[in-house]
Amino acid sequence: MTNTKHEFSSEAEFLAAYDASQFDRPSVTSDVLIFSVSNSVAENWRKADKQLFSVLLVHRDDYPQKGKWNLPGGFIGIDETALDAAYRILRNETGATGNIYLEQLYTFDAPNRDPRTRVFSIAHMALINKNKLHYSGKHDAKWFSIEYNNGKLLLHNEDLTLTEADLAFDHAMIIKTGIERLRNKIEYTDIVFDMMPSEFTLGELQQVYEIILGRKMIPAAFRRTIANKVVPTDKMRSGSGHRPSVLFKKHC
Amino acid sequence: MTNTKHEFSSEAEFLAAYDASQFDRPSVTSDVLIFSVSNSVAENWRKADKQLFSVLLVHRDDYPQKGKWNLPGGFIGIDETALDAAYRILRNETGATGNIYLEQLYTFDAPNRDPRTRVFSIAHMALINKNKLHYSGKHDAKWFSIEYNNGKLLLHNEDLTLTEADLAFDHAMIIKTGIERLRNKIEYTDIVFDMMPSEFTLGELQQVYEIILGRKMIPAAFRRTIANKVVPTDKMRSGSGHRPSVLFKKHC
Repeated sequence: MTNTKHEFSSEAEFLAAYDASQFDRPSVTSDVLIFSVSNSVAENWRKADKQLFSVLLVHRDDYPQKGKWNLPGGFIGIDETALDAAYRILRNETGATGNIYLEQLYTFDAPNRDPRTRVFSIAHMALINKNKLHYSGKHDAKWFSIEYNNGKLLLHNEDLTLTEADLAFDHAMIIKTGIERLRNKIEYTDIVFDMMPSEFTLGELQQVYEIILGRKMIPAAFRRTIANKVVPTDKMRSGSGHRPSVLFKKHC
Repeated sequence: MTNTKHEFSSEAEFLAAYDASQFDRPSVTSDVLIFSVSNSVAENWRKADKQLFSVLLVHRDDYPQKGKWNLPGGFIGIDETALDAAYRILRNETGATGNIYLEQLYTFDAPNRDPRTRVFSIAHMALINKNKLHYSGKHDAKWFSIEYNNGKLLLHNEDLTLTEADLAFDHAMIIKTGIERLRNKIEYTDIVFDMMPSEFTLGELQQVYEIILGRKMIPAAFRRTIANKVVPTDKMRSGSGHRPSVLFKKHC
């Protein structure tokens, strides 16, 4: 196909002559933010104040950006949807299967964001209950707890603290965009329950809100936020040094 | 670069050997939803009940999908951001310049959405006050008023009514996604004012909410929605057959 104007007589004739290779073509990847809140009930329910809001990162063992950490991701297959690619990446990195919440977050598109070539990244956000994971560990992937206040991001595990400069490409911006989306959405949707066990006390739920929001909630604001989102079960939990608490579940 | 594992000694050496052409590569476009509400004050303020919520569509004069209507759009330049492409398309189609609200909506990615080749579309949403447009009209572009209820979309102008089947590619889905985003956002943000003149009566503002939402609002719901969003000016508007009404402006 040349630049000369050509009159086609049908859609089929046009398509037969169409040559996509005449244009500069970019690459498109799917990067996946896998967020979780540690479940104090299963991990160590006596230390409820140790709950952590975490993201899964992979160490880059090869170029480009060797030695940095990034979100799990990969190129989207030419016949694959972005969401299918995100589920594939999620499964490969975590072994997680089943009904996992995953949504398209935003497409990152700065022309120089990847040194190899023009790469658009359709970022996705997954929310999981870490206790349900069969963790494959086949990559050098680690959970990092999130500290994000006043626009500054720090990521911690037992051995390391990462600053934004330790993250590859524009992944610090992707993580911050995801945290802000999640902080907004937990106030007006019920996605927080994707990171909760099926039954929980109101104290545990408030801790999860606070750990994601990065701040304390006054009781009235917490009650307003969860109004119509939870219902009590007929069960109680009694813990060491606490009065027994009613267990609640998501209102469906 | 072959599939043989190669040990690079530096980022620069890796990048020099990188061959992006070994992968199948898609195309990426920017499609722009240009929404507007007719401004009854400037167009015909005596017929306030004639306000319309509209979207700009372009007739396809060439293959593919010749004869259908689509959103203004185009391929994103290899060194251009998606947002810059959206502003370029908006300017070309409408002549609109200045401070126009434009946001990334969603990336549409079904593998067969375009018959030419694999095309991702990063859809954007613009909100404009139609009265501020210097309308270039250089394409066969027309405003269509939107009727969207119970998941069914109809688009009307003086001459035509379009159903979803009259729209090219997956643009009916893009338009419906944009309407739903806008209906959500006008309740909890102040973007509605991007489609309003700088001064308006509360009656006019309520009509704009109702025309976008596609339903009447009860007075209490309207008052709750606009609480803290508007402030009165010291001006009044007196109209034929109406009591004079206080003019309000956006609360900044």
